[in-house]
Amino acid sequence: MYQSFEEASTPSASGDRLKALRRELKSRKLKGFLVPHNDEHQDEFLPAFSERLAWLTGFTGSAGVAIVLDKGAALFVDGRYTLQARAQTDPELFDVVQTPEAKASVWLKDKLKKGTVLGYDPALHTIKEIERLTATLDRAGIKLKPVNSNPIDGLWKDRPEAPAAPIAPHPLKFAGRSAQDKISEVQALLKDEKADAVLLTMLDSIAWLFNIRGSDISHTPVALAFAIVPAKGRPTLFIDPAKVGGNLRGVLNEFTDIAKPAALEKKLKALGKGKARVCLDPEATPVRFALILAKAGAKFVPWADPCVLPKAIKNEAEIRGTRGAHRRDGVAMARFLAWLDETAESGTVDEIAAAVKLEEYRHETGELKDLSFDTISAAGANGAIVHYRPTTRTKQALKPGSLYLIDSGAQYLDGTTDVTRTIAIGTPTNAMRRHYGLVLKAHIAIATTRFPKGTRGQDLDPFARRPLWEAGLDFDHGTGHGVGSYLAVHEGPQRLSRLGTYALEPGMILSNEPGLYFEGRYGIRLENLVLVTLPKQIAGGTREMLGFETLTLVPFDRRLIDPQQLLPFELAWLNDYHARIRREVEPQLAGKDQAWLHRATAPIG
Amino acid sequence: MYQSFEEASTPSASGDRLKALRRELKSRKLKGFLVPHNDEHQDEFLPAFSERLAWLTGFTGSAGVAIVLDKGAALFVDGRYTLQARAQTDPELFDVVQTPEAKASVWLKDKLKKGTVLGYDPALHTIKEIERLTATLDRAGIKLKPVNSNPIDGLWKDRPEAPAAPIAPHPLKFAGRSAQDKISEVQALLKDEKADAVLLTMLDSIAWLFNIRGSDISHTPVALAFAIVPAKGRPTLFIDPAKVGGNLRGVLNEFTDIAKPAALEKKLKALGKGKARVCLDPEATPVRFALILAKAGAKFVPWADPCVLPKAIKNEAEIRGTRGAHRRDGVAMARFLAWLDETAESGTVDEIAAAVKLEEYRHETGELKDLSFDTISAAGANGAIVHYRPTTRTKQALKPGSLYLIDSGAQYLDGTTDVTRTIAIGTPTNAMRRHYGLVLKAHIAIATTRFPKGTRGQDLDPFARRPLWEAGLDFDHGTGHGVGSYLAVHEGPQRLSRLGTYALEPGMILSNEPGLYFEGRYGIRLENLVLVTLPKQIAGGTREMLGFETLTLVPFDRRLIDPQQLLPFELAWLNDYHARIRREVEPQLAGKDQAWLHRATAPIG
Repeated sequence: MYQSFEEASTPSASGDRLKALRRELKSRKLKGFLVPHNDEHQDEFLPAFSERLAWLTGFTGSAGVAIVLDKGAALFVDGRYTLQARAQTDPELFDVVQTPEAKASVWLKDKLKKGTVLGYDPALHTIKEIERLTATLDRAGIKLKPVNSNPIDGLWKDRPEAPAAPIAPHPLKFAGRSAQDKISEVQALLKDEKADAVLLTMLDSIAWLFNIRGSDISHTPVALAFAIVPAKGRPTLFIDPAKVGGNLRGVLNEFTDIAKPAALEKKLKALGKGKARVCLDPEATPVRFALILAKAGAKFVPWADPCVLPKAIKNEAEIRGTRGAHRRDGVAMARFLAWLDETAESGTVDEIAAAVKLEEYRHETGELKDLSFDTISAAGANGAIVHYRPTTRTKQALKPGSLYLIDSGAQYLDGTTDVTRTIAIGTPTNAMRRHYGLVLKAHIAIATTRFPKGTRGQDLDPFARRPLWEAGLDFDHGTGHGVGSYLAVHEGPQRLSRLGTYALEPGMILSNEPGLYFEGRYGIRLENLVLVTLPKQIAGGTREMLGFETLTLVPFDRRLIDPQQLLPFELAWLNDYHARIRREVEPQLAGKDQAWLHRATAPIG
Repeated sequence: MYQSFEEASTPSASGDRLKALRRELKSRKLKGFLVPHNDEHQDEFLPAFSERLAWLTGFTGSAGVAIVLDKGAALFVDGRYTLQARAQTDPELFDVVQTPEAKASVWLKDKLKKGTVLGYDPALHTIKEIERLTATLDRAGIKLKPVNSNPIDGLWKDRPEAPAAPIAPHPLKFAGRSAQDKISEVQALLKDEKADAVLLTMLDSIAWLFNIRGSDISHTPVALAFAIVPAKGRPTLFIDPAKVGGNLRGVLNEFTDIAKPAALEKKLKALGKGKARVCLDPEATPVRFALILAKAGAKFVPWADPCVLPKAIKNEAEIRGTRGAHRRDGVAMARFLAWLDETAESGTVDEIAAAVKLEEYRHETGELKDLSFDTISAAGANGAIVHYRPTTRTKQALKPGSLYLIDSGAQYLDGTTDVTRTIAIGTPTNAMRRHYGLVLKAHIAIATTRFPKGTRGQDLDPFARRPLWEAGLDFDHGTGHGVGSYLAVHEGPQRLSRLGTYALEPGMILSNEPGLYFEGRYGIRLENLVLVTLPKQIAGGTREMLGFETLTLVPFDRRLIDPQQLLPFELAWLNDYHARIRREVEPQLAGKDQAWLHRATAPIG
């Protein structure tokens, strides 16, 4: 199993840990300390040994920061995580504060006198983060000070070992471009920028650039590493040598030097000594490296990580790969949904059993490398909790007359998937059908849109919301996120949301996942991945238009669809989509599963 | 007549003027000089005595900047104005360069050596503009230097006098709030900001704040002035005393001091001496004032002009006013369209005659104070030129089988209007009808949308484009601009465009004006003004939604509408809209005009 259903949180230990941390801070003459969720790589998922925030507070969400003062402590989380943070932490120890509505600076101003010094670990905060925090705290007269070692690391007795899983080359067949080729592209960009080198700290950027994949982190096939790419000469990959087997070492040696992570600091100092112009991504790079470089004499050039955009624009091989991955994943999903239809109405299936069953079907494809995230398997009212994950404590049975929401994905060598379906268990109510229809309209609005070059994700996000707004409804998350190629299931810069300021380019993969959530009742989300297509002339038009090709191949639940609610173009899209699933997935199924898919994809309306 | 149809441009004089300017620059030891369109108030329309760019180059567009060097000169304009700039200037004298595609800095780098000094008039460039220019030119080693007097002013022999039209109080009945009340609001904001004073330079802000209206500028009822509002005490209005009649002086004296414009510099120096914290809007304030303040010792606080947002959010009286203004304007437009239908097919009406006729009908309402801009009266292919204005040289006859586009507006005491209709002269082609239908769909998409609080103009702009994108078409301007209340027909911060980053708030007025343009054939634009409505609960919804109330009351040309092309909700909106025009406008018409409107608003489909 790639998913655990245990509660990772241990809030009962927080009291002692907080006490110990305060003693340590006192000995270091610090009034307080910042404990962010992030590690050095700004990943969404962390290796267990980096879960400092969870260790201290009990909170296991993917974003947040605690501030511990000599008296009082607070946990700052965004709206997605307020409820979870309150449930997982001890209210005697931590105020849970919702950002951005409340501001850390305001909370701190109330608690601290002017001139107070707060410590932070410069390895865990980005350049931009510290820049912003410094500016805000400055007004309150509060100073920030980087510490040399993280005080938690000394106190954490049973801290897990750093992961040391071996890495593997990512074959050219799937990567589509050689590492040499990618490195040359980055070097050409560096020359344009008149810079001497770039430091890379984001793990998926490094995995993409060197065509390697690891398993240091659950659900994202990356390895803990850093890299420096100079404008001229060979890059250096800083990685635990234990992870680089003999054969792989030969492959990597063709285009990169390999060094231990501990050698990075020395290398940065050498760049500084040579007065090098070094590119760092201020939104991704720990401020620690900027401090080392500055002290050594290097010039810091702020520069967005040069791997992010080419990684987001998938090449021919990656596009071929993702289509295959989605056909395969469609088989597992069809078998799962057939099984669900047969068993769920009895009321004997619970959220964990369903998630386990789906993972089994994905295993049976013979190609599963990992899940792309913990499956959200949510019965009834749990479906209204956007980031719900079932645990042995919270799991519910799927009950007749309810909706069941399952949001899941797989990592295959040829692609990453992410799909959400909402299923009627037994007979749905009229309200369920009406709301499902609205979300389906929202989904189809994105799936069918055409748009000119230069259109940004934020320009398309409202198309999904319009049918909901007309009904006085909305949802509080983006319509879609970028997706990697056998990499992170959440990647930038592409996204369909208010914050999607990047122009969409052919080859980018995004999710299309509008939803509606009714607290205490049910949640509906319908998610497919889509690929941005090449510009195409439209008959009678004067300008070429891009569009989306839907990649996911999983039928929508016809019991929840009222064809009267759909416009002709919406119904046509739905029937075309189901017909395509029949063509592409049905031949790979057998017996009852095949019969199920045939029924599930019959024309509607 | 409020509109002139003469060519304002005199490019034949440019040669001598350029020579004289170069002599003057040489005597001042400047290698070059910037000549922007803007004056000190960053207005779209200028008084004649501020038309320095037109005087020098012949170009009369509303945005652009010339750079004159000892050898060579260029005129930088955006895409709207490239053709016009080429037509109006002497190509021997000026390179016409399109921004932002081409950059002034690149042009300059080619022409100038490092260390060259360029002059500019600090009264005509904003703080932000000079900041940006300095940053760009710095890289090329080119320096910018403010001059003490504009070299053009000494050379301009027959320069018109500064306008000295009297100002009038804007009655509370229309303004809805007293000047005292508005000044108190600004002062409260200043206190929140811990600032001592704000300098106001935008003319519509000053007119709004003091409840005054002037006629120094065509089409915008403002007076040339500056103002300083201190956090405590009385503001000072800097204005030519000749404009303030005895009675008005008494009214103004109740809440403001009045001083000559020449006294402003002294007042700024006094603020500086007192080490005052003075707010300036970096996007609006001439850098000259920032330089004076800085030199005198003041602290510059960057702050968006505090009048802009409250001015944009119309109050009850202004909303009542605009509804009345639009009913009145609808009468004039109905009479005009009835006249057009009767006469245009004969082929004897030209663009100027039509514009004159419309202005006559507006005069006959008895309430017309001005046009809100020069009427765009465009026959056939001229309709494809977005910023077309007919002149005695360019005017075309309206010919059977063509489309006629008329974009016009009026200034009434109770409101500002702006409306565009596209009319079939004789029998339209199928392509014309199809394209008209697409623009109508785009228009209705905006008119019918609902949206939650916090939605920005950029979130709604794509709704207008979607039906066009589906057909492989688009238009290269925003979908809508903000509109003032008996003030500027273009105001911020509200706008429906890619750049509309401000949240829309109830009471804001915007235009809704999608279009399609086919060079050499025709242009279609359909424009109404809309008012952002209060949040409203929708049956079955969980969130309140804002929406738009259409203010303009002018029928769409039914000869261009194919009901088959419209969705049921689109047709319903159109018929409801026409029914409303019948209710609100028909009773004010008589005879043939009334009969025309009755026919024009009959149900369709």
